[in-house]
Amino acid sequence: MAVHRFQPQKYYTTIGAHEPCLHIANGDTVVTSTVDTDGCDASGTKVTKAGNPQTGPFYVEGAKRGGSIAVRFDQLRPNRRLGFSLATIAPNVLDPGFVKEMPPVERAAWGIDEQGTFATLLSPATALGTIRLPLSPMVGCFGVAPDGGQAISTDTSGSYGGNMDYRGFRQGVTVYLPVYEEGALFSLGDGHALQGEGEISGMGIEISFDVSFTIRVAAGSIRWPRAENDEAILCVGNARPLDQAVQHCTTEMVRWLRDDYRLDASAASILLGQCVQYEIGNFFDPAYTVVCKLAKKYLPSVGA
Amino acid sequence: MAVHRFQPQKYYTTIGAHEPCLHIANGDTVVTSTVDTDGCDASGTKVTKAGNPQTGPFYVEGAKRGGSIAVRFDQLRPNRRLGFSLATIAPNVLDPGFVKEMPPVERAAWGIDEQGTFATLLSPATALGTIRLPLSPMVGCFGVAPDGGQAISTDTSGSYGGNMDYRGFRQGVTVYLPVYEEGALFSLGDGHALQGEGEISGMGIEISFDVSFTIRVAAGSIRWPRAENDEAILCVGNARPLDQAVQHCTTEMVRWLRDDYRLDASAASILLGQCVQYEIGNFFDPAYTVVCKLAKKYLPSVGA
Amino acid sequence: MAVHRFQPQKYYTTIGAHEPCLHIANGDTVVTSTVDTDGCDASGTKVTKAGNPQTGPFYVEGAKRGGSIAVRFDQLRPNRRLGFSLATIAPNVLDPGFVKEMPPVERAAWGIDEQGTFATLLSPATALGTIRLPLSPMVGCFGVAPDGGQAISTDTSGSYGGNMDYRGFRQGVTVYLPVYEEGALFSLGDGHALQGEGEISGMGIEISFDVSFTIRVAAGSIRWPRAENDEAILCVGNARPLDQAVQHCTTEMVRWLRDDYRLDASAASILLGQCVQYEIGNFFDPAYTVVCKLAKKYLPSVGA
Amino acid sequence: MAVHRFQPQKYYTTIGAHEPCLHIANGDTVVTSTVDTDGCDASGTKVTKAGNPQTGPFYVEGAKRGGSIAVRFDQLRPNRRLGFSLATIAPNVLDPGFVKEMPPVERAAWGIDEQGTFATLLSPATALGTIRLPLSPMVGCFGVAPDGGQAISTDTSGSYGGNMDYRGFRQGVTVYLPVYEEGALFSLGDGHALQGEGEISGMGIEISFDVSFTIRVAAGSIRWPRAENDEAILCVGNARPLDQAVQHCTTEMVRWLRDDYRLDASAASILLGQCVQYEIGNFFDPAYTVVCKLAKKYLPSVGA
Repeated sequence: MAVHRFQPQKYYTTIGAHEPCLHIANGDTVVTSTVDTDGCDASGTKVTKAGNPQTGPFYVEGAKRGGSIAVRFDQLRPNRRLGFSLATIAPNVLDPGFVKEMPPVERAAWGIDEQGTFATLLSPATALGTIRLPLSPMVGCFGVAPDGGQAISTDTSGSYGGNMDYRGFRQGVTVYLPVYEEGALFSLGDGHALQGEGEISGMGIEISFDVSFTIRVAAGSIRWPRAENDEAILCVGNARPLDQAVQHCTTEMVRWLRDDYRLDASAASILLGQCVQYEIGNFFDPAYTVVCKLAKKYLPSVGA
Repeated sequence: MAVHRFQPQKYYTTIGAHEPCLHIANGDTVVTSTVDTDGCDASGTKVTKAGNPQTGPFYVEGAKRGGSIAVRFDQLRPNRRLGFSLATIAPNVLDPGFVKEMPPVERAAWGIDEQGTFATLLSPATALGTIRLPLSPMVGCFGVAPDGGQAISTDTSGSYGGNMDYRGFRQGVTVYLPVYEEGALFSLGDGHALQGEGEISGMGIEISFDVSFTIRVAAGSIRWPRAENDEAILCVGNARPLDQAVQHCTTEMVRWLRDDYRLDASAASILLGQCVQYEIGNFFDPAYTVVCKLAKKYLPSVGA
Repeated sequence: MAVHRFQPQKYYTTIGAHEPCLHIANGDTVVTSTVDTDGCDASGTKVTKAGNPQTGPFYVEGAKRGGSIAVRFDQLRPNRRLGFSLATIAPNVLDPGFVKEMPPVERAAWGIDEQGTFATLLSPATALGTIRLPLSPMVGCFGVAPDGGQAISTDTSGSYGGNMDYRGFRQGVTVYLPVYEEGALFSLGDGHALQGEGEISGMGIEISFDVSFTIRVAAGSIRWPRAENDEAILCVGNARPLDQAVQHCTTEMVRWLRDDYRLDASAASILLGQCVQYEIGNFFDPAYTVVCKLAKKYLPSVGA
Repeated sequence: MAVHRFQPQKYYTTIGAHEPCLHIANGDTVVTSTVDTDGCDASGTKVTKAGNPQTGPFYVEGAKRGGSIAVRFDQLRPNRRLGFSLATIAPNVLDPGFVKEMPPVERAAWGIDEQGTFATLLSPATALGTIRLPLSPMVGCFGVAPDGGQAISTDTSGSYGGNMDYRGFRQGVTVYLPVYEEGALFSLGDGHALQGEGEISGMGIEISFDVSFTIRVAAGSIRWPRAENDEAILCVGNARPLDQAVQHCTTEMVRWLRDDYRLDASAASILLGQCVQYEIGNFFDPAYTVVCKLAKKYLPSVGA
């Protein structure tokens, strides 16, 4: 279980079967960093072109096509003092007839305190004044090389992960991803110091991150990203419209309950029917993201 | 501020400008009951035809077209010991190619304990055994007479309310509804002892309720239902697909922040962009329901 | 087979179980008129409030709940020389990010020649000049009283018909509608001298009509409007989004082929898979309309 | 204007910046062949893996990023006597509650006559018997290397073209595609001897083709595929749901009318509002395809 300290030299704005930056063993930890969506690093220097540049891909020894990997986000921490977001809700999020009432797109600047606890709005000047919001760092875009030899823009997402912009992908969560290429080829980027549900202005508080994560080769075949944290198990659907994303993540949850918790479709239906929760990851990117969530407290009851 | 104890004699399965069952004054409280979606009352007797039958409508003195009313749900309490739900996730919630893997639609029976604290699964027999879930009673269908002299089925919903099946409509919440007809003509029904987000099996735990609510005539014009509880303000969008429901509720939230909290579109965008939350009311009825939510803790910061 | 000449006195902007204006027998013909969407008649006089006012409802003797009626549009003819449309594509039809590039909503005026053959653009002045377009008169909104005692705005549509704004509802077509109330209670209005597919600017060339139609009581139960003309059989789906409208009309076509043409689901699939056509009725109203069409020339081959 | 006779040796199931198979000059014609979706050639031999394998990519000298190319399909002709389709409408095309009434997916076999005029159903045996349908050969999947260095599966489509499965892409049509990589890198495959609108069973009559096409470097920048035939100009939108595809193609048509026909947004709105037509390319693939169409007969009127 080695710990690899990795300084990225090259970034990608597609997720695909690119030349691995590092080979790691099953169970290894990687300590590295990500640039912000503009391609700027901890010093604010632009080191690569914009568009959710990815650190990676990391080749995981033993990750086989048809299997899956488990990625635990051990640490996700903004590594500089200045972030930015957008100051206009995106037009697709609003009633079409209301779009003309919105101002032109403008950037907002946020200061991060030294402890990484709060974001303070620096500009523009609005009735909000210097509003101060507690941070909740998350990683917007990560995934493995997609199926069929594709290389897909970090603008969007799919069964392989990608730009899901789900604020539940925080420190401490473990994400399961299907493996389509030998070694899985995991990459990540697009850290947000904070983000509302849906990423409705098109950006969280965008910033460079210090990150550390641990990857295990996992058993079993999955069709969509899954995750778990201390309280819940989660399945992710990435698609447009939201309706289809709901279908993907709910179907994946039924499969999970069936395969790993021995609940047939009736039992899974009864449980989910009264206990399921949903979260919207993003309602902005080309593919929207919806998360289907079941509290772990309901799982021990199973079979009781 | 009178308290009216009202025993319903007649129920409606459309929401419209029906003959009022009672006239109440601004600020009055009504203590009454609702039958379950099958039309069965506290004794389990079928007293009216099925389909979310409504108790009401109540004529609110002083409620004028173009204004709004505020309805506080003072008490929402199942009033019998047996409820029912469905044991199959609805086909529209699942991937089209997965639908054939689901069992035929069947009902599940739930027992409610005397204190109204838990629901215990009585049937069918599944790997869940006698799973016991904490109650969270909510009212699935309520609203005012819609605009233009319409009478609309209690299957669906719109700007007037209706069958929203949102589990956040619990005891203690205050809901604001637009007024389209003199007296508003408020009605309610379809109590659920518990319901998962999205009402994905097509039913919560359906049961008859004792209810009590207080109605005030409210200032100002609104376009969609709004609500507040101790923690948050909420706006509701009812439409298909989910995407349009998100657009409706988000737009209504921007209007609310602009009109009542003096945040222009930029300020509202910055705040919502990093702090907004969404919940799915239902993903089953003809119109889906999405709720846009903003924690009240962010509101005092405004203008600071 | 009487011919009734009926002069409307009253118009409705909901479709519901209103007091019939006339009782007719199975096979009778009605010769009457409709006002334009603004409520203006052949003389341009405003005689009722705006919003697709309906002439009717007509009570058809022998039309029973659970059955259907066949309405043949014998004549649909603009009865004045001035029509109007809108000069801006509706924002829901365009990319959300393009909406701001569109001008404010404005009306366009069209002159109709004495023979009712052409519409000539009178205003506004644009690079189109006095463009002259051939008429193709159609009726935008018609239907029967909906199920469950509802009264639904003439803005929208459903299984009962309503504001479908499909340009294929021309003279000579026969439409089949499900019957939900005794006597069916058919009404019609909202004539368009011409309309593009989708009614994307929100209006056709709106004008008052002289109309004549013949209604027969039809055998069999249907779930969505069906129609036929000389060339094709058609099924209609009314819903949002378009995807759901496609599902409704395609499913109804499979049922039609199964029930009346003895094609099982495989045979219907093979035939439709290679021969089906679709048209968008409207992409503007609260419910969109899609038509599934199969050329009659393929039907005689069946069973050959 | 050379004519290149090209025998493909290698096929791709992604569209991306692959090594060109041939460099051609502006105005050159290519005479070549495509395999069927299974990867079988004119002799029925499987020569590559399944999934709409592409012949190409062809590097067009002078095609620059930000420009466009015009591809004229000079000849599209099935080159063998046996094709196949599917015998079940896809579940996403039908009402979710109707899906269980459909049979399992099965293939249908079609014989093509020597003149390439008709397809005759060979199997399965159904009430259709040996139905004979006139051919209308079209190319289902073609495009240029997408933006940002992506390589995207031939299952889906986007602004670069791809698996659009639009039956209007017949012999004689000229298609305009945006150029994202030097040389454009055009490829094509997935010929259908015939296909219904929407490709609702998931396949047309799949068969290998002899094809010939001519490519010119075109002026101007476009955002979505455009096309023209003798009767009409067309714009293509590829997205899910259909609603978004309609938005893309309609917006592109407004741009085309504005940029090339000097119609401002009002004039374009008036014209399209009364004259536009739509066709559904496919309603099956990951991205749906909608075509916005304007008859050329309306264009000479412009400015008259």
